[in-house]
Amino acid sequence: MKDVSAQDLAGNLRRVARTSDDQRTVVRIGPATFGDDRTFTVIAGPCTVESRDQVIDIARAVKSRGATMLRGGAFKPLTFPYRSEKMFELGMEGLRYLHEAGRVAGLPIVTEVTDLRRVGEMSELADMLQIGARNMQNFPLLEEVGRVGKPVLLKRHFGASVRDWLGAAEYLVHNGTSDVVLCERGIVAPHTHVPTSRFIVDLQAVLAAKELSHLPVIVDPSHSTFKRTFVAPIARAALAAGADGIILDVHPVPEQAAVDPLQALSYDAFGTLMTELRGIAGVLGRQVA
Amino acid sequence: MKDVSAQDLAGNLRRVARTSDDQRTVVRIGPATFGDDRTFTVIAGPCTVESRDQVIDIARAVKSRGATMLRGGAFKPLTFPYRSEKMFELGMEGLRYLHEAGRVAGLPIVTEVTDLRRVGEMSELADMLQIGARNMQNFPLLEEVGRVGKPVLLKRHFGASVRDWLGAAEYLVHNGTSDVVLCERGIVAPHTHVPTSRFIVDLQAVLAAKELSHLPVIVDPSHSTFKRTFVAPIARAALAAGADGIILDVHPVPEQAAVDPLQALSYDAFGTLMTELRGIAGVLGRQVA
Amino acid sequence: MKDVSAQDLAGNLRRVARTSDDQRTVVRIGPATFGDDRTFTVIAGPCTVESRDQVIDIARAVKSRGATMLRGGAFKPLTFPYRSEKMFELGMEGLRYLHEAGRVAGLPIVTEVTDLRRVGEMSELADMLQIGARNMQNFPLLEEVGRVGKPVLLKRHFGASVRDWLGAAEYLVHNGTSDVVLCERGIVAPHTHVPTSRFIVDLQAVLAAKELSHLPVIVDPSHSTFKRTFVAPIARAALAAGADGIILDVHPVPEQAAVDPLQALSYDAFGTLMTELRGIAGVLGRQVA
Amino acid sequence: MKDVSAQDLAGNLRRVARTSDDQRTVVRIGPATFGDDRTFTVIAGPCTVESRDQVIDIARAVKSRGATMLRGGAFKPLTFPYRSEKMFELGMEGLRYLHEAGRVAGLPIVTEVTDLRRVGEMSELADMLQIGARNMQNFPLLEEVGRVGKPVLLKRHFGASVRDWLGAAEYLVHNGTSDVVLCERGIVAPHTHVPTSRFIVDLQAVLAAKELSHLPVIVDPSHSTFKRTFVAPIARAALAAGADGIILDVHPVPEQAAVDPLQALSYDAFGTLMTELRGIAGVLGRQVA
Repeated sequence: MKDVSAQDLAGNLRRVARTSDDQRTVVRIGPATFGDDRTFTVIAGPCTVESRDQVIDIARAVKSRGATMLRGGAFKPLTFPYRSEKMFELGMEGLRYLHEAGRVAGLPIVTEVTDLRRVGEMSELADMLQIGARNMQNFPLLEEVGRVGKPVLLKRHFGASVRDWLGAAEYLVHNGTSDVVLCERGIVAPHTHVPTSRFIVDLQAVLAAKELSHLPVIVDPSHSTFKRTFVAPIARAALAAGADGIILDVHPVPEQAAVDPLQALSYDAFGTLMTELRGIAGVLGRQVA
Repeated sequence: MKDVSAQDLAGNLRRVARTSDDQRTVVRIGPATFGDDRTFTVIAGPCTVESRDQVIDIARAVKSRGATMLRGGAFKPLTFPYRSEKMFELGMEGLRYLHEAGRVAGLPIVTEVTDLRRVGEMSELADMLQIGARNMQNFPLLEEVGRVGKPVLLKRHFGASVRDWLGAAEYLVHNGTSDVVLCERGIVAPHTHVPTSRFIVDLQAVLAAKELSHLPVIVDPSHSTFKRTFVAPIARAALAAGADGIILDVHPVPEQAAVDPLQALSYDAFGTLMTELRGIAGVLGRQVA
Repeated sequence: MKDVSAQDLAGNLRRVARTSDDQRTVVRIGPATFGDDRTFTVIAGPCTVESRDQVIDIARAVKSRGATMLRGGAFKPLTFPYRSEKMFELGMEGLRYLHEAGRVAGLPIVTEVTDLRRVGEMSELADMLQIGARNMQNFPLLEEVGRVGKPVLLKRHFGASVRDWLGAAEYLVHNGTSDVVLCERGIVAPHTHVPTSRFIVDLQAVLAAKELSHLPVIVDPSHSTFKRTFVAPIARAALAAGADGIILDVHPVPEQAAVDPLQALSYDAFGTLMTELRGIAGVLGRQVA
Repeated sequence: MKDVSAQDLAGNLRRVARTSDDQRTVVRIGPATFGDDRTFTVIAGPCTVESRDQVIDIARAVKSRGATMLRGGAFKPLTFPYRSEKMFELGMEGLRYLHEAGRVAGLPIVTEVTDLRRVGEMSELADMLQIGARNMQNFPLLEEVGRVGKPVLLKRHFGASVRDWLGAAEYLVHNGTSDVVLCERGIVAPHTHVPTSRFIVDLQAVLAAKELSHLPVIVDPSHSTFKRTFVAPIARAALAAGADGIILDVHPVPEQAAVDPLQALSYDAFGTLMTELRGIAGVLGRQVA
């Protein structure tokens, strides 16, 4: 691997580097398992928690179609400081709805934390804390989240190297969390290559991260492609390439999603994708859960 | 699609743009079929034709494992003008060996043409002519190859947009070839993202090219990843994402390949991959051929 | 500008977008002036504050050669959580040394804040707070720093668009700071283009940011190029292209710098560069200060 | 330099690598000098030769303002095979006009050759042959042009590494030309960084190429930025950073240029720029010619 040296592996990636071929961290959160080489784990839910009813409905819908974990944004980082009426943010109220929905449906929940002052209260409700791409190298946040000891989903910044990404994971583990799941969500690519409005999924980084580290690695086909017709193909590709799972936006009426309406899957589309994923997993000696 | 405008589609991509959802070009070359939505076509063979015996052996090996087309380099573009003793080039002699190997094994052949003065003699022996990535916008070469009327495999330059790529295809069709197959072989990506020594496979470009154009699109997992352990995962991902096929380097003793020894698959590894591809294709209502 | 729409300018960049050709924010901090179109302002100092004596010596050295502001890292973000004995961090003690050095030399100081819990105490000592590249979209930090009302130096993330960068500036201004200076410090570029170990300076982004916004824009030739022989050429280029200033690493014995020893300029090299900058500025009707 | 190894320098870049600090190739073409460390050479002229009168007028205009070489496109590669009525191509007739204009004004001429079959006849009229970015790795063309022995202007492909670029130069020198001038014209950059419609000028590649090789290196601020207001700033930056010259589009009525009307400078703007360049050159102990 070009951008991670042997010196990095020994000196800087003391806890996340693999030291033998069969060394694997398996992260278990209730029914969700990441990294056992057999399971392909599907996290699904709304981009943003819009209401109590919405997130409970979605939780039941994705659970019944095979997801084993629920996602949902309570605090959403936005490029600009202004929110339209529709792009509201429920904050802690939203997290409580997500928590309730998870309990109703029997699904553990993951949500993004953006402010280190909220790590404590959010970790009481969330089963897994997500570090978003933009905060991948927000080291004080990594330290706070690491200290809590809960499982963490660490997204790769769209401008970050695999080396930077593993360095951020090292911060988490060094501070106390052993349960870190890495998540590829696309990289900036030359403008002339971009047929859509967002980021190119780098499956080779998934493979590289799994060769270099013992941590599980999943893919986010929704926030990377930002284009509904690309989500299922990239989700299938992630499984076929060997990722440990995916995290997906699902919405009852995708075009009406409060945030990112271009990328969410409908319940039907999600169901169809799950059937395809189960088939592919079976061929590869794996299972979808 | 951001980088291809409606004006491009109507005015500049007159022949390669899709004008209806079900418009598809199907390219048939003997047993190989590209673009019928059902078939996933596997082209395999040596990076470089090294000897008559070698290429006949490889042809039989890939045929028996399910490939329907044979690849092989007779003229290889190199970054520097100096060839080591090992990186020799058989030229027309190599193409004749490839042609013979194809006939022996019952496989049509594809080989790269780099010099427009050789288009005539090469097209007498090759069933399909390949335009390499570096020549994607060598317009006089595209014109000569287009005029021959034979099927063409058009690789995407690692620095080219989907727009540039389709523009090059338009040159081919405008000059007389209707049978063009597009081939994604990876893009330059920010250095900090590159865990290996080459290019990032852009599966979203495959999806974009298929949405914008009626031409078939395949993937080259060998020359993009340049890393043996990444080839099969990316090949499976290409199928899962919806590509029309792949083109692969296969060598009896990969470490001893004259050119690019880091990326070729052994016969066994190729056989295992073909079994996986057949399984995945079955799940998706497709077949490997 | 491709990636900033008219809608962004009117709706999302309400405070930082230029609404007329001659609208300019001029940021004045003691002897340092940013954005008056006439002044090219030079900020210089150590990458990291290593000791009281060191930073006082550097402050005097850069002041005597024409710098009007002092830089120095007290809290340094590192890719990995482990610091070598040499890469120590003085923290608040370092900031106090920097503050003292500034007063001794008569230079205002700028230092990076990485933890929102330190914004209060750091703003008591620093004349300008720097948001580093990695924290460009750490929105809670931007909000805290904005509320303090002190001048801010906002570095562009190496993976961020001009749109993202201006969006971050909008957060600062929206929360209370009107004195924001933007700083280009290089972008990730395709690996095949990278002749050095870091980032490509994007002078076109400087031009774009100045066309789109009324804020001053400076360049960091040290942390972008990461290569001593490239620093002076890129510093001169920044002036020639129209930037409002530069921020530079200067060290008495560059090879012995505790952090980033490959990029700092010696006192002599800094003096020579300042002479060149004064000459170029004079040609362009500007002055170095 | 990361992407050029010591092995490349010794084994693959046998003729273009610098073997001592003061080794410099100086290319002299009539009044134009490239690479003597003192001269900053300005090539100017129309993107495309539109008529005999036009190119003679432009030749006189740029000569009187200080250019020492005339550029002009006779054969223009286009992304799509269709030319609008306005984007006509005069071909050899255009080259004869350019040749006449050069003689009238006393300027040597440079023009792009895209088809290896025309190298012979074009080299009879042109003083320097240009290899365009898209043909940088069209090796048969490089061989033909190298054999002619005339000076060559070798543009860097927007997706090519410095290593690839120097490799292409090695082809030229290996085949017989010793007078090669390299030309940086921008690279593909992550879409999120692109404030304009084209390529980011990589001045660090200019510096790297000059460190690694003894060949002169110039910059094309017109075809890279593709935006008139950016041309002069980047031209000044190229001089300030240490390039050996620039090549510029100049047109009497820029908005009416047949090809690329967004980037050409008017006579007045060109005159103003030349005055600025002379001033900056003087400061740096150089001269514009």
